[in-house]
Amino acid sequence: MNLFYYPAACSLADHIALIEAGLPYKLLSINREKRTEDGRDFLSINPKGYIPTLEMNDGTILTENQIILAYIAEQSGKLVPDDSILRWRTFEALAFMSSEIHGSYNPFFRDFPEPEKERAREKLKKTFAILADQMGDKAFLVSNEMTIADCYLFWVLMAAPRSGIELPKNLRNCLDRMKAMPSVIQALAEEGLS
Amino acid sequence: MNLFYYPAACSLADHIALIEAGLPYKLLSINREKRTEDGRDFLSINPKGYIPTLEMNDGTILTENQIILAYIAEQSGKLVPDDSILRWRTFEALAFMSSEIHGSYNPFFRDFPEPEKERAREKLKKTFAILADQMGDKAFLVSNEMTIADCYLFWVLMAAPRSGIELPKNLRNCLDRMKAMPSVIQALAEEGLS
Repeated sequence: MNLFYYPAACSLADHIALIEAGLPYKLLSINREKRTEDGRDFLSINPKGYIPTLEMNDGTILTENQIILAYIAEQSGKLVPDDSILRWRTFEALAFMSSEIHGSYNPFFRDFPEPEKERAREKLKKTFAILADQMGDKAFLVSNEMTIADCYLFWVLMAAPRSGIELPKNLRNCLDRMKAMPSVIQALAEEGLS
Repeated sequence: MNLFYYPAACSLADHIALIEAGLPYKLLSINREKRTEDGRDFLSINPKGYIPTLEMNDGTILTENQIILAYIAEQSGKLVPDDSILRWRTFEALAFMSSEIHGSYNPFFRDFPEPEKERAREKLKKTFAILADQMGDKAFLVSNEMTIADCYLFWVLMAAPRSGIELPKNLRNCLDRMKAMPSVIQALAEEGLS
């Protein structure tokens, strides 16, 4: 499988998941002219123009971060709990982080006017409080086992300082624990972020 | 199952899906003081405070629109294609509409300043063009059979005029066809929108 990515972007979640899943993968970056590392026009691969984008071995293209993560989990039989409710909690947490948190990073990534940043900070405080409640004193967000929700959570927490908000303590601790995981160390190194 | 909803809000997608799925359900609205129609404190049911929220028969709470839709489909064995790739396309379309379109409605729903509205309109034009490409001349978004993606699409299209953008013709036609479906007619009537 090929994973189209930008270093340190949210495709890092899928990168970590691929390593944890033990699936073979190739990373392909995209330049400013939207050409892929192997010389193709990225917009003809994914007309949406954004990453992560997964190219399956048969050439099928899959987009949307949470769906690529679910696909990686299904292909490997890993990273989603067997328990029915915890399985739904995993997908629910991914949807929550995608729509309520990731979207609130835009004012900082794209330097929108200050009132928009302040409104986003207020929302981020509330959403991180909800994540902190969900995590409690568990090792990971959904249970004590790592799931695809944690792969996304790692990127979400890593990107949070750009918004200027302070993370709840148990989330900061989770970020620190994950930074020491071999899969995360490998993913950061492969993206040139060590 | 209980579906917590506001009339004409995005919970309409789940309402239509429940009818199409043939699952028994009860609709419960929430008032301005966040009390549910059956007299409970909604924030103690879902601390996120938003709808849709699904209460399973055993009291388990599920949130996030696309995940509730996936749950309804799995419970009924309907509304998600058997074909592997079309199944992923269904979930992918839900994630896309949730993060790229629904989020772009906020400036209109909450009357943000005009520059934010204009930026949202530019994004909506692009995202609806992608949906129109995906639909082509099929009866529904993913295939010629209705899926949970169409339940959400119906609400997305119904809410679009508030942004002032014009929908591509094949999406307008899909909206018109869906308005004539018994499940949609029933859902609109039950929400007092006929």
